[in-house]
Amino acid sequence: MAKARRFVPIVLRVAAAAAAGVAAIVMATSDQTTTVFGVEVQAKFQYMPPLVYFVVANVIACAYSLLALVVPTAPSAAARLVLVADVVVGMLLTGAAASATAISVLGKNGNSHAGWPPICGIMGAFCDHATGALACGFVAVALHFLLLVHSIYTMNSS
Amino acid sequence: MAKARRFVPIVLRVAAAAAAGVAAIVMATSDQTTTVFGVEVQAKFQYMPPLVYFVVANVIACAYSLLALVVPTAPSAAARLVLVADVVVGMLLTGAAASATAISVLGKNGNSHAGWPPICGIMGAFCDHATGALACGFVAVALHFLLLVHSIYTMNSS
Repeated sequence: MAKARRFVPIVLRVAAAAAAGVAAIVMATSDQTTTVFGVEVQAKFQYMPPLVYFVVANVIACAYSLLALVVPTAPSAAARLVLVADVVVGMLLTGAAASATAISVLGKNGNSHAGWPPICGIMGAFCDHATGALACGFVAVALHFLLLVHSIYTMNSS
Repeated sequence: MAKARRFVPIVLRVAAAAAAGVAAIVMATSDQTTTVFGVEVQAKFQYMPPLVYFVVANVIACAYSLLALVVPTAPSAAARLVLVADVVVGMLLTGAAASATAISVLGKNGNSHAGWPPICGIMGAFCDHATGALACGFVAVALHFLLLVHSIYTMNSS
């Protein structure tokens, strides 16, 4: 039981780091160039600030998750500090996934009230790439949440 | 000391509930009608899905914060359950503030790459209202984070 208690957070951290890393890589490589009415247009994640934030946040979360693996959490004070850092990273990942989703849904549906046309009809490959990255981002959020729940339920109860 | 420990989360919860409640009310009342080239145009929070999500999330967070005040958290199991619920609400508030910010910044600056023009030049009052709501939303996120840190550092250490 004690062995499983040590094993679960390691698996969750590695999985969360992998999901965040893949999310960042897939988003950072989303790039499409196409021709519309004879004019060459390009879609890049750098053109959308929330997608840049998504990449940066997921890189930070990936690096943090790997670093946290080597932090000794045996003393109670260290465990609490890591838990606070986990909360910060969880909120960072959630904010990144939420803002990137807001822009991606706008790219797919547009907003007629604001005069913002959808772009996914023209930039289908770019949108598919971004959707894949978002899916990985939400997996990272879910794994990070499970890690938080595990930490809350095991802290000081061993 | 023990008295302060009981008093701090109550103050933080009431303040977080107030900030989230004000954020929801200010956003929900943001409405502007103006005339552009003889055509009447209207801006409402209902026209932007992330702003609707912002209002719903802040109403839920406000109601939860008030409800959590009356939950007895003395037994360890209840305290841990409330802490998990606090994490969920913290992530909900962060996601709401982040997605609403993404759309609000787009409304202010537009995005020339995507062909999305800024709307705040025409809808200044609407944008000011939304910015005020966002400020309250971020105050709610910050207070909720402080509440989480306080709960993590006081759990099982009394």
